[in-house]
Amino acid sequence: MKQVERIGVSLEKQLLEPFDKLIAGRGYQSRSEAIRDLIREQLSEEKLGNPKAHAVAVVHLVYDHHSTKLMEKLTSLQHSHVLKTICTTHIHLDAHDCLEVIVLKGAVGEINKMAENMLSQKGVKLGKVSFVAAQ
Amino acid sequence: MKQVERIGVSLEKQLLEPFDKLIAGRGYQSRSEAIRDLIREQLSEEKLGNPKAHAVAVVHLVYDHHSTKLMEKLTSLQHSHVLKTICTTHIHLDAHDCLEVIVLKGAVGEINKMAENMLSQKGVKLGKVSFVAAQ
Amino acid sequence: MKQVERIGVSLEKQLLEPFDKLIAGRGYQSRSEAIRDLIREQLSEEKLGNPKAHAVAVVHLVYDHHSTKLMEKLTSLQHSHVLKTICTTHIHLDAHDCLEVIVLKGAVGEINKMAENMLSQKGVKLGKVSFVAAQ
Amino acid sequence: MKQVERIGVSLEKQLLEPFDKLIAGRGYQSRSEAIRDLIREQLSEEKLGNPKAHAVAVVHLVYDHHSTKLMEKLTSLQHSHVLKTICTTHIHLDAHDCLEVIVLKGAVGEINKMAENMLSQKGVKLGKVSFVAAQ
Repeated sequence: MKQVERIGVSLEKQLLEPFDKLIAGRGYQSRSEAIRDLIREQLSEEKLGNPKAHAVAVVHLVYDHHSTKLMEKLTSLQHSHVLKTICTTHIHLDAHDCLEVIVLKGAVGEINKMAENMLSQKGVKLGKVSFVAAQ
Repeated sequence: MKQVERIGVSLEKQLLEPFDKLIAGRGYQSRSEAIRDLIREQLSEEKLGNPKAHAVAVVHLVYDHHSTKLMEKLTSLQHSHVLKTICTTHIHLDAHDCLEVIVLKGAVGEINKMAENMLSQKGVKLGKVSFVAAQ
Repeated sequence: MKQVERIGVSLEKQLLEPFDKLIAGRGYQSRSEAIRDLIREQLSEEKLGNPKAHAVAVVHLVYDHHSTKLMEKLTSLQHSHVLKTICTTHIHLDAHDCLEVIVLKGAVGEINKMAENMLSQKGVKLGKVSFVAAQ
Repeated sequence: MKQVERIGVSLEKQLLEPFDKLIAGRGYQSRSEAIRDLIREQLSEEKLGNPKAHAVAVVHLVYDHHSTKLMEKLTSLQHSHVLKTICTTHIHLDAHDCLEVIVLKGAVGEINKMAENMLSQKGVKLGKVSFVAAQ
C-alpha cells in the first residue's frame, strides 16, 4: 500500500493563478498531480546526473538502410555490450531512411558510450538518448 | 544517385587536434562523417524550431498500470487525435511501472499538445518527447 | 501587498522523502520555497516558448580581441538593433580571449536573431543566450 | 602564431545546400567559420561534462531586492566560497525585481553547488548557469 501524506504549500496569488491556468491547459485534473509531476522530474534529473545511476534509456537512430552492413554492425554492437537491450522497434520513414528505437537498461555512463558508438557509424544520420531513472 | 561534393575547411591546429581525439574516442571512421553529423543535427534543430514542421516523434511515458482506466485513456487519446500513431512498444519495468514508447507523425506543435495531454493524466509519472525532422 | 494563499498537496511518502532530502542538500529552508521555484521555472519556460514574449536575455560571447574590427562590429550591431542593450560586461579570460556578457531586452524572437548575428561573426568562438521572462 | 590546416570534407548536395542557406541566414561569411563554430561547441560540451573541468560560468539570478537580508547573504556566499567571483552586474528589472549576473571561475562541480546554494535562497525567484570551458 502506498502511504500518502498531505503537505501545505503557501504561494502568492500572482504565482497560483497563472499556474492553475497552465495546468488546466495541459489537461491536469488537480494541482497535486501537477506538482507531483514537477517533483518527479526534478528527482529524476538529479539521479541521472550520476553516470553510475541505473537507468532505462530510449535511444532513437535515423539511418539509411542501404548503408553497407550497418544493420549487422548495430545489432552486433547491441549484443556485444554489457548493457541489456530490452527491445528494438523499427519504423520505415521513407524509401531510404529507417527510424530505430532501442530500449536499453544499464548505467547512465555505459548507455552514453554505447549510444555514441552507434551514432558514429557511417550511415547513421541522427539520433538521441532519453533517460528514465530506474528504481 | 546521391551527388557528393567536396569542400575545403580551414581550421587551427588547436581545434583540429582535440576534435580528432574526440571523434576517435566516439568511434568515427572519418572527419567527414563526424562533420556531416554536426551539420545534420544543426539543420534538424533549426527545422524543429518551427511548430508547423513535419516530424516524427518518439514519446516515452512511465506509468503505473494499476491506475484506473489509464491505459484505455491513453489509447483513446492516440486514436482520437489528428496525429498518426505509427506504433507503440510496451515494456514492463517492475511490478508497478510500465514504460511506453509511442512513435507519432505530425506537426511539431500538435505532437507537443498531445504529449502534454498524455503526461498530465493521473498515473503517468514521467515522460519526454524527442523529435526527428521529417523530409 | 502580496496576497499569499495556502494550498494542500497530497503526495506519496516515496516521493516526499527523496524530495525533502534533495532540497535540504540544495539549501532550501522550506518545501514551499522549493515548490514555488519549480512552479516559477515551469511558467517561465512556457512563456519563453512564444517568440513574441517579452524577455530579458543574458548573452555571453567568447571572442579573440585581436580579430580585426570585431569589437566595432559587435558594438555597432548592438546599437543598430531594435533591441535595447541594457549593459555589457567585459572580462579578460587570457592573453587572447575575452568573455562579453550582454544584457538585452526585447522579444524572444528578436533576441535570438541578434544573438545568431553576433555568434556568426568571425572571431566569435562560442556563445549562448539565456532568457528571463519579463513581466 | 596560429597554425592553420586545411582539410577536405565530402558531403551530399542534399546536406550542403540547406547548410549553406542556414549559415547565410545567420550571417556567416564562410563555411569554414560555421564549421569551426560547430566543432568548438562540441568540444566545449564534451569538456564541461566533467565536473572537475575548469570553467568560467555566467550565473543569472532574478530576485526581489525587498527580501530581508538577501543581498547580504548572496554577497557573503560569493565571498566565502572557494570559487573566484570575477564580477557582478546588477540590473533593475522593475520596482521589485533585480537581475544579477555573476561571472565565476572554478571547477564545474563547485560552480553548480554554489549556484544551487544561491538559487535556494528565499527571495531568489529564477536563475540559471551557463558554462564556458576554460583553457
